[in-house]
Amino acid sequence: MLQIVEKLMREHIESLGDLKTSELFQKVPKGKRLRAKLILKIAGLENPQTQNLASIIELIHAASLLHDDVIDDATLRRGKPSLNAEFDNKTAIMMGDILYSKGFSELTSFSKDISFCISNAVALLSVGELLDVELSKAFNPSFEKYFDMIYKKTASLIEASASSAAMLAGKQSEKYALYGKNLGLAFQIIDDILDVTQTEEVLGKPSLNDFKEGKATLPYLYMYEKLNPQDKSYLMTLYKKELSAQESVWIKAKMAETGAIERCMKDARELGNEALLAIKYEEDVGLVKIITEMIERNF
Amino acid sequence: MLQIVEKLMREHIESLGDLKTSELFQKVPKGKRLRAKLILKIAGLENPQTQNLASIIELIHAASLLHDDVIDDATLRRGKPSLNAEFDNKTAIMMGDILYSKGFSELTSFSKDISFCISNAVALLSVGELLDVELSKAFNPSFEKYFDMIYKKTASLIEASASSAAMLAGKQSEKYALYGKNLGLAFQIIDDILDVTQTEEVLGKPSLNDFKEGKATLPYLYMYEKLNPQDKSYLMTLYKKELSAQESVWIKAKMAETGAIERCMKDARELGNEALLAIKYEEDVGLVKIITEMIERNF
Repeated sequence: MLQIVEKLMREHIESLGDLKTSELFQKVPKGKRLRAKLILKIAGLENPQTQNLASIIELIHAASLLHDDVIDDATLRRGKPSLNAEFDNKTAIMMGDILYSKGFSELTSFSKDISFCISNAVALLSVGELLDVELSKAFNPSFEKYFDMIYKKTASLIEASASSAAMLAGKQSEKYALYGKNLGLAFQIIDDILDVTQTEEVLGKPSLNDFKEGKATLPYLYMYEKLNPQDKSYLMTLYKKELSAQESVWIKAKMAETGAIERCMKDARELGNEALLAIKYEEDVGLVKIITEMIERNF
Repeated sequence: MLQIVEKLMREHIESLGDLKTSELFQKVPKGKRLRAKLILKIAGLENPQTQNLASIIELIHAASLLHDDVIDDATLRRGKPSLNAEFDNKTAIMMGDILYSKGFSELTSFSKDISFCISNAVALLSVGELLDVELSKAFNPSFEKYFDMIYKKTASLIEASASSAAMLAGKQSEKYALYGKNLGLAFQIIDDILDVTQTEEVLGKPSLNDFKEGKATLPYLYMYEKLNPQDKSYLMTLYKKELSAQESVWIKAKMAETGAIERCMKDARELGNEALLAIKYEEDVGLVKIITEMIERNF
């Protein structure tokens, strides 16, 4: 089923009639297609527009990653050079704009409810990107700001994917929105955990990269809360620095000592349970599997 | 009337509920608001949605300029530091994404005809940006490629502004689309002429900047056509170079000798006339003034 989604994405881009654009699109990383899977699972294939909706949201998501990599100065995406690294920032910005705008223009073939739901989520996502950069300027110890930021930056589009898929299938969109929101929050927390616990080989990008980039993610917030004043001060000397092997080991040891990773995993699992509670009477067994696989993943 | 458009733009951004975003929005250059004027003139104020449509298109246009300045490494916009120069590229990219996505989400309150018309134009505009960069890699002597690029990059959104305003007012949108397309092409040609004929003080950015950036605009295409082989070779040695005063004088002298600027002005006026021909029986006197003022402008 995902193959048809991939084909539709290519067709949307090829319909722009520009060879260079089509060529560059082949270089855009494909990703996990979590949002497409979610939409196919929720909306089913009775509505012929399901796969098209999935293709549009994946175009939009790909656009956000292209710009994200430019903003984060990232050079790797899933173990391969990111588009900004392989070409340049300009190419990634322009390609992102093409994917966004083509996505939005195809979205107008859907009902206003659906097109508003998705485009509004993209506006939140864009604000979330700005918040992420703002919060990375100085160590942010606020859980509230962290959760607001990851809701906007990551969960809002997953929430909108689930919600719009439910609209397409005539299901109760509020329930699926809540499912998607909690799935999205859990997804980001797991990403933030993996940055601490996994190796560069598994991640396809450097380990402990978030802290170097100024991002005090949930594991750091829980750890910080439990550190004594002396360790807190030492942690601050490592903030936004290229870490030595010894410093990396210290951070990982303190994460273990303070139980920070366990607390994050507990939060992710609780969010997963809340997601499932929201669709308890909807009998979507596939949606349980999505949650489980996403939480127990290693990359 | 434009004040209400400005107010609506601010309100759209403030409705995102993020202080930093609202602050940054105040730093986004305001521009000529040509597209807003066009929409107000065509759609009139009987439909309460007219000013909202104008505000949305100006948000989208502002987004395109923010990204354009990053892509062109521009440091000045209308005599002031561009957002990427005052802050950094990241801020300009993120702010552009916010304005684009908020514009698209507000656009969903309009009919599908209108929201498709605008969003499709933005997809063309984004491809036009890519074409512009591609054509700047080596001297492009093709008139056809130049016109295809300026249609997409500049005229498509002006065409869509005119066309969607006509839809809103229940007027014949095809006629206004043709008016807008020709106005947009003429607008870009005039911009390309002014880069050659005006001083830095008037332009608010360096003179003869296009050629330095690798852009062989219409004046260069006409000049090139008329140069002898020796002058052609000499011109190529100046391509993409920081020009000395003497070299600038040479280019301007050759522009005069070959009548390149006059031929561009003739094209712009012909396009202006074609624009007016398209709406000949529509009795919109304001639309004649827009064409005349745009062609006879000095900056």
